[in-house]
Amino acid sequence: MPGSGYGTIFRLTSFGESHGVGIGGVIEGVPAGFKLDLDLIQKDLDRRRPGQSHLTTSRNEEDKVEFLSGLFEGKTTGTPVAFIIRNKDHRSADYSSIKDSFRPSHADKTYEEKYGFRDYRGGGRSSARETIARVVAGAIAKQFLSDLGVSFSTYVDQIGNVKLNDSSFFIAEAIEANLVRCPDAETAAKMEELIEKIQKEGDTVGGAIRCVVMHPPKSLGEPVFDKLHAELGKAMLSINAVKGFEFGSGFESVAMKGSEHNDLFMEDGNTQTNHSGGIQGGISNGMPIYFRVAFKPVATIMQPQETVGRDGQKMILKPQGRHDACVVPRAVPIVEAMAAMVLFDMYLRTKANQW
Amino acid sequence: MPGSGYGTIFRLTSFGESHGVGIGGVIEGVPAGFKLDLDLIQKDLDRRRPGQSHLTTSRNEEDKVEFLSGLFEGKTTGTPVAFIIRNKDHRSADYSSIKDSFRPSHADKTYEEKYGFRDYRGGGRSSARETIARVVAGAIAKQFLSDLGVSFSTYVDQIGNVKLNDSSFFIAEAIEANLVRCPDAETAAKMEELIEKIQKEGDTVGGAIRCVVMHPPKSLGEPVFDKLHAELGKAMLSINAVKGFEFGSGFESVAMKGSEHNDLFMEDGNTQTNHSGGIQGGISNGMPIYFRVAFKPVATIMQPQETVGRDGQKMILKPQGRHDACVVPRAVPIVEAMAAMVLFDMYLRTKANQW
Amino acid sequence: MPGSGYGTIFRLTSFGESHGVGIGGVIEGVPAGFKLDLDLIQKDLDRRRPGQSHLTTSRNEEDKVEFLSGLFEGKTTGTPVAFIIRNKDHRSADYSSIKDSFRPSHADKTYEEKYGFRDYRGGGRSSARETIARVVAGAIAKQFLSDLGVSFSTYVDQIGNVKLNDSSFFIAEAIEANLVRCPDAETAAKMEELIEKIQKEGDTVGGAIRCVVMHPPKSLGEPVFDKLHAELGKAMLSINAVKGFEFGSGFESVAMKGSEHNDLFMEDGNTQTNHSGGIQGGISNGMPIYFRVAFKPVATIMQPQETVGRDGQKMILKPQGRHDACVVPRAVPIVEAMAAMVLFDMYLRTKANQW
Amino acid sequence: MPGSGYGTIFRLTSFGESHGVGIGGVIEGVPAGFKLDLDLIQKDLDRRRPGQSHLTTSRNEEDKVEFLSGLFEGKTTGTPVAFIIRNKDHRSADYSSIKDSFRPSHADKTYEEKYGFRDYRGGGRSSARETIARVVAGAIAKQFLSDLGVSFSTYVDQIGNVKLNDSSFFIAEAIEANLVRCPDAETAAKMEELIEKIQKEGDTVGGAIRCVVMHPPKSLGEPVFDKLHAELGKAMLSINAVKGFEFGSGFESVAMKGSEHNDLFMEDGNTQTNHSGGIQGGISNGMPIYFRVAFKPVATIMQPQETVGRDGQKMILKPQGRHDACVVPRAVPIVEAMAAMVLFDMYLRTKANQW
Repeated sequence: MPGSGYGTIFRLTSFGESHGVGIGGVIEGVPAGFKLDLDLIQKDLDRRRPGQSHLTTSRNEEDKVEFLSGLFEGKTTGTPVAFIIRNKDHRSADYSSIKDSFRPSHADKTYEEKYGFRDYRGGGRSSARETIARVVAGAIAKQFLSDLGVSFSTYVDQIGNVKLNDSSFFIAEAIEANLVRCPDAETAAKMEELIEKIQKEGDTVGGAIRCVVMHPPKSLGEPVFDKLHAELGKAMLSINAVKGFEFGSGFESVAMKGSEHNDLFMEDGNTQTNHSGGIQGGISNGMPIYFRVAFKPVATIMQPQETVGRDGQKMILKPQGRHDACVVPRAVPIVEAMAAMVLFDMYLRTKANQW
Repeated sequence: MPGSGYGTIFRLTSFGESHGVGIGGVIEGVPAGFKLDLDLIQKDLDRRRPGQSHLTTSRNEEDKVEFLSGLFEGKTTGTPVAFIIRNKDHRSADYSSIKDSFRPSHADKTYEEKYGFRDYRGGGRSSARETIARVVAGAIAKQFLSDLGVSFSTYVDQIGNVKLNDSSFFIAEAIEANLVRCPDAETAAKMEELIEKIQKEGDTVGGAIRCVVMHPPKSLGEPVFDKLHAELGKAMLSINAVKGFEFGSGFESVAMKGSEHNDLFMEDGNTQTNHSGGIQGGISNGMPIYFRVAFKPVATIMQPQETVGRDGQKMILKPQGRHDACVVPRAVPIVEAMAAMVLFDMYLRTKANQW
Repeated sequence: MPGSGYGTIFRLTSFGESHGVGIGGVIEGVPAGFKLDLDLIQKDLDRRRPGQSHLTTSRNEEDKVEFLSGLFEGKTTGTPVAFIIRNKDHRSADYSSIKDSFRPSHADKTYEEKYGFRDYRGGGRSSARETIARVVAGAIAKQFLSDLGVSFSTYVDQIGNVKLNDSSFFIAEAIEANLVRCPDAETAAKMEELIEKIQKEGDTVGGAIRCVVMHPPKSLGEPVFDKLHAELGKAMLSINAVKGFEFGSGFESVAMKGSEHNDLFMEDGNTQTNHSGGIQGGISNGMPIYFRVAFKPVATIMQPQETVGRDGQKMILKPQGRHDACVVPRAVPIVEAMAAMVLFDMYLRTKANQW
Repeated sequence: MPGSGYGTIFRLTSFGESHGVGIGGVIEGVPAGFKLDLDLIQKDLDRRRPGQSHLTTSRNEEDKVEFLSGLFEGKTTGTPVAFIIRNKDHRSADYSSIKDSFRPSHADKTYEEKYGFRDYRGGGRSSARETIARVVAGAIAKQFLSDLGVSFSTYVDQIGNVKLNDSSFFIAEAIEANLVRCPDAETAAKMEELIEKIQKEGDTVGGAIRCVVMHPPKSLGEPVFDKLHAELGKAMLSINAVKGFEFGSGFESVAMKGSEHNDLFMEDGNTQTNHSGGIQGGISNGMPIYFRVAFKPVATIMQPQETVGRDGQKMILKPQGRHDACVVPRAVPIVEAMAAMVLFDMYLRTKANQW
């Protein structure tokens, strides 16, 4: 119940703080007898890690995952898979200035009010560094899904006002071809340019990520509250800085008519259009699942900002530390990880309920 | 686990089908000793029920709630509150034609694939009639929240392309002043006009609902997966026909800079702006919570449509039955109910946080 | 979380009070497409109901179950199965005298302290009448298990000091051959005699029930907290008046040596002895599962008793109402129902274990 | 759902195997702002660890706990408390002989059947070494409970046929005064003698543990399935080698009459007797809670035993490794830990459900 767990059968319980010993998790419900490719897990961690390029924070964490249980002779045993990624490059001194003040649009004040005090070092538990645990669990889920023939295409489709006008499935090579993980070279170049400009201003900028899932299993999703898209939505909204979620036709459907929006069937049972985003009545129909996630600009900017101290006194918060002008490219593996966790958990739930 | 339950402490388990005995639920975790106003519950059911006006379906259900347990001498006893709303006006004959075919963009085919067969009468469990149970649970949650000083303003802010350009808190009288539940008379008139036009075409149209919550308790929301807005998002996305959810600055934040988006503190601890939508780091900060929900046009249209039968053969689905050209005005109490359920459950969860 | 639900996939949420509208429940996770035999369900209810014989309370409830959802054309649909058994013979007047006092060894005082007030009519939610809901859910679980070849033998093996010295599997006919549900005619006669004697004294007496499950599926039970016998134990201990649970060699194992207690394997993989009670490391091994449940004498006696009123004042509680001198024979279907619920839920949970 | 988690608000998810990296856990729901005494936690680990005396296994583990998250400046932060105890003295070679055979009355065969293969080193996940995680979580729960005035007296009350005829609350000094943790010196001496004799025979022997909880909070326990004693029972039965559980009058109540068994009230609201074991209707009444747990003799004996190999072939299992002739004295802190986890979780649940 307390909020650090996700999933019902395939379930991650995560732990750890930005500047503590490390970030880790325990994954229950990993089916037994599966040969895990540990390199693939590390690869996703590398896609998430800071310090990848000049566009990202210079906090330089290796983020090597260490498995603590649940594997034997390279295979899953059916028992909990625990892991930790130790924090290395944490210069706690950097954060001492925020000990007695609250950074605007961060969780500093809400954590302090909720818990009576807070681990102020780098955001503590509220730091986006927590998402490492999700990437590990998602990378494991993806390997099972891959065995079922499922593939993911997750990419940046907007940074600030620069938007990609294409919602296709793109292959990994196209997405990873540039620093912003936008599969269209021209749009990607504009995005990079924008981020560099924002970076120079000491400011930050938001963005959006699209995820397209090909060949998902049918029948995923549980009526009526645990609809597949409801779980996907919760999973995405739980990622730091996310402000919105839409699937299929999304917010555009508001202005559509039923006669335009309805997905008529073909004789093979597939649909001619896919405004439903592969989900009807909360249950996957086998068509591609696609959705889009909105990220706000991150709150830490390299400009002086007004703020208040613990006792309400006005203060000026000076910029310091190392921060991304735009986290959205690094959030791509996180969105994909959460999508994989949801789909795989739903797959196992569906299996359990069949006679 | 199986999907018909929502909430962890204040928890609704719902049951029932469109054309079975009725729709009902069991609510666990209702604190004891609270005097429930049953009329207020019925009032919300009346706001949701079909046949309210010429704009809605003529299925004429009284939708009277009957409580089965959990109340004694007018007060909650702390034990499960069970209830049922019996189905009265169900003309099963109307639906026999869809027995062997699948309606486009409905759950007919996905239910049949998931469960092997389906209750084809009016959508069975996938019918939006199921939302009655949510309205009852939400109406109970609202009474507890009202005791804490919380108030809700939930209204239609878009139908098709007609959009309200105001996201304020409006009083109930303004919202209920017209058939579309849009608090601006002029916009409301345009919306009504649009719905009448769509109705004549035998078509349907989408819309959006905004919800503004004033004076919410602080500290609601659990890091890291059960962030308050993640739970609100899941709750909204679980409502039939919902395609998107955004809170605070939402999708607009994508194109904003951090320096614009950050909510600077005032000396009283409140913030000058509220792009955060009252939620920071997943936890409420006491500022108004607001969010917006996108509804697609409903799938049942009064026009002939191509479809396929159980064996894949092409068929023409003839329009019949009684359906809303736009369900969004009737969805207002449902959105409000789910919001109340989430907030009250989170309130109870929060009680165990500090020592 | 709040305590009126049992099971994770096959999950009953029960509701209702002794003297309210009725007792009922919602069962989630019932696999779809299964033809339920409603007569078998009613038959188990009849085995539990009061007024079966001169040995039981004369409260004469028909206890007819009415299904509210989840069935279509006689088959389960995969959606929640809700049901209610209406209370008919409730003479509330009988209970008014206990309104302001607390009956010894009942839940009157603890409910009042926990909830601030209580539904004093016949124990309200704490009444053993609540077990009706379990019998319905268990009778459904038994039909699925029966399809898997599982059979149950549940019988009274002790009343007061009269003990059956046989722990075999007995057929239903033997068990149902007498009023006390003890499969040995001679022992049964002694038990009946004892109960009649106790009844004349206006007193009550305890007893024990043994349950033997033949041909259980292998691999049921989840390490490490949800061991099969731990779930069985919780399920049994949750039944009113239960004070103890033991499985396999049980409390006798305390005085045994490992060399005597170990169950050596045979070449077919079965074991020569079965001190393990069919469960090793918390997981079923396919051998018969057997356990024993201790019931205290029920608290309501037909003798005047000292008690205290709400303000602590001494009072004499006069005997009244209609009560069983020994509830153990009527508890047989309840024990069996809970066992079936646990085993079937565990069976569904197990489906997700291997890849 | 998958079985390695216990509790609803105060919730331990445990991980690890006997011969892997270590044993650990994540505890969610630890209230914030509490100063933890880490020495007290280590002290309970020391009471559980092997190699304490000549009566226990010579596997010599230090069992030092390392905290990975959830603490800041010595206090709990309200975020998950993760920890690990690394395995040090694991001589995997010792166990290679059991790779292809199944030890009698162990979990070897059931794990292999459930998961398709198994970590055969020292029992893997089924090893009682897993209980370390419980001791840590329980030691934390005990500190909160101690703050509420609760105290525990947990001791061995039977080994083989040597039984203590006293069920009082004994102080820690009396219990820890001897190697068998039986608070009566004379009985303890007989128990030690018996264990030494059994040890020489290369055999093992069972035993029983009693736990008495003084000054428990009132109102713990949730009707109807999560009765306090049902949760205690599940918790105890989930401990390796446990075969039975009884509380209050337990199995003796079977032969009692209601007029003897009922606990009459005193004017102060307490009861004259306490056959109820401090729990009425599943809810604590403030009187001492007491229960008793039966342990079978452990399965690993130092004598040759018949067994079968993976393909059913007969084999002789030769004794080896290092094992306890009686684990019951070392199980005392485990029983106490699980009791504390249940009581504290129930305390938080009760808090969350109050208006």
